[in-house]
Amino acid sequence: MTGRVIFVSAGPGAADLITLRGARALSLADVVLADALADPALRELAPHARWISVGKRGFEHSAKQTEINALLVKAAQEHALVVRLKGGDASVFGRLEEELIALAEAGIASEVVPGVTAALAAAAQAQRPLTRRGRGRSVSLTTAMTEAGELRAARSADTEVFYMAGRQLAALGRQLIASGWSADTPTLVVSRAGCADAITSEHALADLARAALLHRGRPTVVTVGTGASPVAAQDQNLPAAKIIVSPEEAPLTSQSCP
Amino acid sequence: MTGRVIFVSAGPGAADLITLRGARALSLADVVLADALADPALRELAPHARWISVGKRGFEHSAKQTEINALLVKAAQEHALVVRLKGGDASVFGRLEEELIALAEAGIASEVVPGVTAALAAAAQAQRPLTRRGRGRSVSLTTAMTEAGELRAARSADTEVFYMAGRQLAALGRQLIASGWSADTPTLVVSRAGCADAITSEHALADLARAALLHRGRPTVVTVGTGASPVAAQDQNLPAAKIIVSPEEAPLTSQSCP
Repeated sequence: MTGRVIFVSAGPGAADLITLRGARALSLADVVLADALADPALRELAPHARWISVGKRGFEHSAKQTEINALLVKAAQEHALVVRLKGGDASVFGRLEEELIALAEAGIASEVVPGVTAALAAAAQAQRPLTRRGRGRSVSLTTAMTEAGELRAARSADTEVFYMAGRQLAALGRQLIASGWSADTPTLVVSRAGCADAITSEHALADLARAALLHRGRPTVVTVGTGASPVAAQDQNLPAAKIIVSPEEAPLTSQSCP
Repeated sequence: MTGRVIFVSAGPGAADLITLRGARALSLADVVLADALADPALRELAPHARWISVGKRGFEHSAKQTEINALLVKAAQEHALVVRLKGGDASVFGRLEEELIALAEAGIASEVVPGVTAALAAAAQAQRPLTRRGRGRSVSLTTAMTEAGELRAARSADTEVFYMAGRQLAALGRQLIASGWSADTPTLVVSRAGCADAITSEHALADLARAALLHRGRPTVVTVGTGASPVAAQDQNLPAAKIIVSPEEAPLTSQSCP
């Protein structure tokens, strides 16, 4: 008996930002292999499953990925339905490719359920759309860091969103200015988007380093350019660091995150 | 009495690709203003709500947007909770800015629930991750067309995803080649991603025009570059047009779309 694997995108952190389809897959799962970033509240959606935390986050040693691949194949060989739960959206900086290859080589069928990637959660949190009519037609999603630990950032879109940039804010700001962005480009930093304790701060690009302490140790997304600016009727004056701790009003749901 | 508005991102089409948070907002709504693209099955999630279809899709006359803004403000002035349901993710080509401005000007509180944008649904459907280890560090989301109807496409990221490109496939292919992409760049066309009748076709960029008939009249996303290529263990030979009609196996959920 060989089962199948459903890759489920868990969303940016809060358990209720998973899709209905993803929740249904969890409810049917025999085994769940979950990333470290997944909200433990998601476990309640998989009451029958054995839950295995594989603890991967950010850039890690490739041996670790090989172990996850092997674990995934083994689980599918022993159970009917395995869910591989990944933070954010599996297709965006989710290392999905390696695991798809391992399954294909083992002849195991798979399915991918998409989800909310961090850039979208940050935009929703700040109520600052990534595209703007007549001014913002392109959005770039990228990591500030290469796998080798090199910082690479350029100017390629009206709005640029940097993933996993939290530890490199000062260098990111400098490099973006060197790439042609002006020093006063609107820049938005959001950590733990979608959670009750989300923090949003806005800066001029030249002052991005000031965000480091505020967001330290939290999953952080940096948005630069058109999509970082407030919409017209919102506060137009960009102070050196305006900080918004959410929620400003009662949230719709509990939104609590681990 | 003035209520509040929750913008809910419905996802790419299939009702079960909405988030749990979005579904909860619908369940509490007094009024729902929905885009034309929203799956009618979403209505079942809002049993108590008056459902108003505002019928907007793609580029339309701005007078229409003004009417939607006015309707939204009026609804919030008369009801406690108004959900504004948008296809895909509200922050990506969702015309969210105009509606946020109208609400801010009227002093009405709002909240935004993120969702699955079309690029992510297409990648999941085809099982081709948008980022690839060591080869694909940047993803661009853009429209092929400007609001004025002009086609503008360049090369700006390892993987580029074009929204609302279905009617311009031949011209898009030509312009991308003129912008520096090679004629044999892997190109993936996905329509109605996430639905039981999704169609995926892969092409060399120079042959993109061949996708036009196959995807005609359906919401279509075009992915070009690294993220359009098959993962290593999948079929490596890119035929002129390989067509995959989903599902190849029994789908997890009904996934039926209108």
